[in-house]
Amino acid sequence: MKSEHKDELKARRRNIALLVSYDGTNYNGFQRQNPPSVAVQNILEERLEKIFGDKIELTASGRTDAGVHALGQVVNFFTNGRIEIEKIPRAASSLLPKDIIVRAAWEADKNFSALHSAKSKIYVYKIQRGETLNPFTAKFAWHIRYPLDVEKMRAALNLIVGTHDFSAFKAENKTNMNPVRTIYAAEIFSSEEFAADILSIKIHASGFLYHMARNIVAAVVAVGRERLSVEEFRRIFDSRDRKLVPATAPACGLCLHEVFY
Amino acid sequence: MKSEHKDELKARRRNIALLVSYDGTNYNGFQRQNPPSVAVQNILEERLEKIFGDKIELTASGRTDAGVHALGQVVNFFTNGRIEIEKIPRAASSLLPKDIIVRAAWEADKNFSALHSAKSKIYVYKIQRGETLNPFTAKFAWHIRYPLDVEKMRAALNLIVGTHDFSAFKAENKTNMNPVRTIYAAEIFSSEEFAADILSIKIHASGFLYHMARNIVAAVVAVGRERLSVEEFRRIFDSRDRKLVPATAPACGLCLHEVFY
Repeated sequence: MKSEHKDELKARRRNIALLVSYDGTNYNGFQRQNPPSVAVQNILEERLEKIFGDKIELTASGRTDAGVHALGQVVNFFTNGRIEIEKIPRAASSLLPKDIIVRAAWEADKNFSALHSAKSKIYVYKIQRGETLNPFTAKFAWHIRYPLDVEKMRAALNLIVGTHDFSAFKAENKTNMNPVRTIYAAEIFSSEEFAADILSIKIHASGFLYHMARNIVAAVVAVGRERLSVEEFRRIFDSRDRKLVPATAPACGLCLHEVFY
Repeated sequence: MKSEHKDELKARRRNIALLVSYDGTNYNGFQRQNPPSVAVQNILEERLEKIFGDKIELTASGRTDAGVHALGQVVNFFTNGRIEIEKIPRAASSLLPKDIIVRAAWEADKNFSALHSAKSKIYVYKIQRGETLNPFTAKFAWHIRYPLDVEKMRAALNLIVGTHDFSAFKAENKTNMNPVRTIYAAEIFSSEEFAADILSIKIHASGFLYHMARNIVAAVVAVGRERLSVEEFRRIFDSRDRKLVPATAPACGLCLHEVFY
């Protein structure tokens, strides 16, 4: 009888997916941490458990580093909780801090995994240009005082589009991953946001190695300020040697914009 | 001799003006407060005293309320401190918290007063539209879920342009001020900023009564959500009766954009 009950519970378990935005400033990344360190996942699971009444273990499209933001992180979890799907975003908002937002919820196919079903992702990195820091964009952009040659940055970004070995842009201490990824688009554009002169670097790829987005930005910025020529950028990229790339760009400028399934 | 020394000191005192931006979220307004309450002025004066080596008393173009931001607040002060003008923004940045920025400094005429010489000001109020709060704009915009009719809001804003008695939009407890002001322009426009759908209300006026900008926004939003017709808005404005205007809009959406001299 007991195992029948378990089977029944399992049969009616739903696979729920959420679209989540967060300001990563005050969190030690997305992935669950041991207290007292607090990650976005700790807060989300704790609050979702109050809504669903059972133990929640989230699977995310990927981790984001400490201080990195998300506009469109996707997570999924299995639950026996009975709350109506449409009510989840509001119920979550009332329990979550202001810097974590559940934008949408839907019931996914039983086989859907936010991690394994992801086909590609867009990351956007924002730079605030100008002599003085803009206080409204300070948490969401890398402030750069020196002039940047946007056309040269665009030329460097064009070189990484396609399927390549991205070893030159991986994190130094991560060595045992397949370093081949496909970049579908790598764009740069200017805008005025909150009265700041913002330069955005948008990268759409099949996946990102650990620190890859921020290392690409660091090298592209080095090209923009003419510390590297476009030709030197190409040689570094071809060398697959992480040590040749300038220091990783600050986390605050990076945002996981969208995950495609 | 002593008074001659004083005269000499006075003669070489400079009148220094600063252009200041701040994120007002964590401050109890601009105007100096008694501790433990902290205003932007407390922090600025304390840090400027370290740079100039004498007692600094700032005069600002006007106070801003608790939680209100500034892109272009202007202040001035008299000092015997000898630091070169061009070095002030960087020197200040190194001492100030990240949410207060000295964007520019210049030596003003001895008769210049940031308060009394001001000819007009622009305030911008930002609204974030959409079902869910955007975490990147949450501190700098009023999140409104319900639909807003922008054309009706524009029609209401057109009614306040010109020289009028703004008693209907003043703070309830402030009664003894001349309530006549001139509005040179009152505009509304949409933009995408940090992936949020932002509606900005920009008001350029000879001056603003206490709470006037936020009370105008509250009434214009009531028109936008069709709680007031444009005709009712006009009647309230003409009535000069503060009690007819909806509750003051939240401070977080408001920013002192520019002061003209």
